[in-house]
Amino acid sequence: MPGISFFFEPKSVAVIGASNKEGKFGYYLLRNLLTLGYKGRVYAVNVKGGCVQGLKAYRSILEVPDEVDVAIVVVPADRVPQVARECAEKGVRGLVVVSSGFKEAGEEGKRLERKLVEVARKAGMRVIGPNTTGILNTSNMFTTSFVPLEGLRRGGLSFIAQTGLFAGATLSWMLTTQPFGVAKVCGLGNKCDVSEWEALEYLGEDEETKVIAAYLESVSDGRRFLEAARKATARKPVIVLKAGRTEAGARAALTHTGSLAGDDRVFSAACRQAGVVRASSMGEMFSIAKGFLMQPLPEGPRVAVVSMTGAGGVLASDAVSTAGLEVAELSEETRRRIGRVMPSWARVGLFVDIEPLYEAVGAECYEVALREVLQDPGVDACMVILLCMGGWTMPLIEERRLRRSFLEPPRESGKPIVVYVHGDKESSELAASRLESMGVPAYGSIEECTRVLEAMYFYSRYLRRHKL
Amino acid sequence: MPGISFFFEPKSVAVIGASNKEGKFGYYLLRNLLTLGYKGRVYAVNVKGGCVQGLKAYRSILEVPDEVDVAIVVVPADRVPQVARECAEKGVRGLVVVSSGFKEAGEEGKRLERKLVEVARKAGMRVIGPNTTGILNTSNMFTTSFVPLEGLRRGGLSFIAQTGLFAGATLSWMLTTQPFGVAKVCGLGNKCDVSEWEALEYLGEDEETKVIAAYLESVSDGRRFLEAARKATARKPVIVLKAGRTEAGARAALTHTGSLAGDDRVFSAACRQAGVVRASSMGEMFSIAKGFLMQPLPEGPRVAVVSMTGAGGVLASDAVSTAGLEVAELSEETRRRIGRVMPSWARVGLFVDIEPLYEAVGAECYEVALREVLQDPGVDACMVILLCMGGWTMPLIEERRLRRSFLEPPRESGKPIVVYVHGDKESSELAASRLESMGVPAYGSIEECTRVLEAMYFYSRYLRRHKL
Repeated sequence: MPGISFFFEPKSVAVIGASNKEGKFGYYLLRNLLTLGYKGRVYAVNVKGGCVQGLKAYRSILEVPDEVDVAIVVVPADRVPQVARECAEKGVRGLVVVSSGFKEAGEEGKRLERKLVEVARKAGMRVIGPNTTGILNTSNMFTTSFVPLEGLRRGGLSFIAQTGLFAGATLSWMLTTQPFGVAKVCGLGNKCDVSEWEALEYLGEDEETKVIAAYLESVSDGRRFLEAARKATARKPVIVLKAGRTEAGARAALTHTGSLAGDDRVFSAACRQAGVVRASSMGEMFSIAKGFLMQPLPEGPRVAVVSMTGAGGVLASDAVSTAGLEVAELSEETRRRIGRVMPSWARVGLFVDIEPLYEAVGAECYEVALREVLQDPGVDACMVILLCMGGWTMPLIEERRLRRSFLEPPRESGKPIVVYVHGDKESSELAASRLESMGVPAYGSIEECTRVLEAMYFYSRYLRRHKL
Repeated sequence: MPGISFFFEPKSVAVIGASNKEGKFGYYLLRNLLTLGYKGRVYAVNVKGGCVQGLKAYRSILEVPDEVDVAIVVVPADRVPQVARECAEKGVRGLVVVSSGFKEAGEEGKRLERKLVEVARKAGMRVIGPNTTGILNTSNMFTTSFVPLEGLRRGGLSFIAQTGLFAGATLSWMLTTQPFGVAKVCGLGNKCDVSEWEALEYLGEDEETKVIAAYLESVSDGRRFLEAARKATARKPVIVLKAGRTEAGARAALTHTGSLAGDDRVFSAACRQAGVVRASSMGEMFSIAKGFLMQPLPEGPRVAVVSMTGAGGVLASDAVSTAGLEVAELSEETRRRIGRVMPSWARVGLFVDIEPLYEAVGAECYEVALREVLQDPGVDACMVILLCMGGWTMPLIEERRLRRSFLEPPRESGKPIVVYVHGDKESSELAASRLESMGVPAYGSIEECTRVLEAMYFYSRYLRRHKL
């Protein structure tokens, strides 16, 4: 079987089921291909012929007067096997079947999916899906997705999704709220042919991909998954969100992608062995990805907590120790140096309370604390709790100030930093976006910050243990 | 000892340490009192005399030519005992000591705090704090807080905080991002006198307070806390976030509010016995509070999952069963009724997949599903996963449509609903704010939705077991 890289770099594409009708997937999908900057040749196929979005519509792929690398199929499920036969006859290398109504939809769907596989196997044609939004490659702007992708940024995160729609909404969310860009998305759907391990293998070797995140409802081949994961994690972090953990979840997965979710403990053990970070929610997966994309790995488990709020310091200490990390004990030397700047009534406790430093040095408070804390050899990483309350906190989040406080000291120390930003919507969104635009990850809770550092430490330890 | 209600309804107030200097707590604090609508008499006290924010500044409280119910103290810690003596001499009923530098700050601070308590006890004067933002009462707009409070909405949530600053930033966050209004805030700080059980007792009886949320680092008197909690939970939900759960957290608490955090298992058991919901993070506490404020209690643990995305349906099924709730099994009748509307290839699985319904009935999809699901006697509550992807999903989140889909069917059934809104920033924020303005709580993750329903079910079961 040929590899799957051609799915990401087709020279010519046909949309089978292309539509003029807003509201149809075949409409948005073709529009994405025509407007986002894809430079390959695009052909529209629609049984009714005529003209679709300014393109001549061929009644069948067999009428297209050119070679076709990839056909994107959005016709109703019962027509898919026939369409696949025509594609095979045409010599199409691969299909991305967006349509649903297959294995996930009962007996008739199962039959249709078996038919599709049979046709494809016989012709040596690869299939992604069915029941998926398929492919996105930001380096050539090729996509089979029907969701709006304006504002797409190129970047280091690649995403494997075993779900038709979620990759869509999640991608929209990511594009409009997250600071990192995307390298590639590979939606697998029902995985009738191309499977998670092949996607993992491909993205593991892809130079543009710096971090891989995957949402899976099943693992088709445990051994090959483990193998591909090991190879990938030797080069870059891999984060997996595996659904169908519980009996109810597994039953739901069966009706979603026809997946047999498998034993969750086995999967967990496999992930640990292969250095794969396991996320417990979609949000957590992206939080962790952001940490990996923006910060260096911590060399140990000792997290210094720097907080403008005492309560935050206490909650962070709880969270850090619950996660199996340690709250860093600052050296006598560091305590003395910070203490020198503080008002006489204050002292440095288990966490560094910024409030007395603020009283002493004003807006420089975070900078003073972070410079001292990060040079301490007993500190491997730092969590900061930054409060925003309009008026008096504005000088703390000026761009130049943030750079000197949150970017430079960590960079000089080579240690990772994560920031929990909390306060009024306007100034905390401003602070977070400023931080992230300079490469400092900001999060909405202490628990997120902790989980990110935990995952980064897990991966760092894995690499060291395996001398990678 | 007199009760604490006078702290929330003083007729006259003095700010000791009132300031003209922007950046000082004594500036913002007085400005809040003068601009937010408080109708009582306000006096400024500053050792330098002169004029502060348009008020004559008295050099000492003893010079104020009027009775003073509450004195707000923002002078440095070492001057507080003397100020307290003057307040006692003046016959002030209670002090709110905002200043920090007491028990939390080492030996000298401990001594100052003991002194303060001694003076107050002798005079029968009550003290809130030190080390706190103190009081807020939205029914008369009295506050001792220095954080910006513009845009404050009156509402049903009251908040007990054992922290000086967090109540400030958290309040700013709440005011600018959360749909519910606030009844009262009671910041306790170091709790040298007024303690959590008294605050709980007061808010439990307060008619304006519908839900109580508390952040605590210690419990001063376990027996009285349990008693006050039992009385309060018989009338309204109480949610507690207890910090200092771990050894590190407890050490941090000691330097924050000088608290001895106590045994966490004992506290957990006490909460369970008293029907108190225990939250594990600040965000979770407010998510749960929002659920209680907006929705009726579920009568059982069976949660119907309605999702525009299959992956969401699977993840929600996992989350619901992990939380000790059950994914509702829809009756044959309900399945048949939904099935009649769906395209032939689709079927109703463990969760209701909205996507095929969307293909069949367009923007009415959620309404159709929710009407059927909520009338099913096997369903106690509903979690909806609503996707927003700009263009094609806009008709789904029109105000009238949301009302007919998410407000009316639950209201008619008397069952609670929670909605996870996911997608691009603009339309998901729009959908969430529209939903919440009509009283339907929207959340940013499946896990939050689940945790809210879990907490509501816990409380509902507690009330039924105790026939309350």
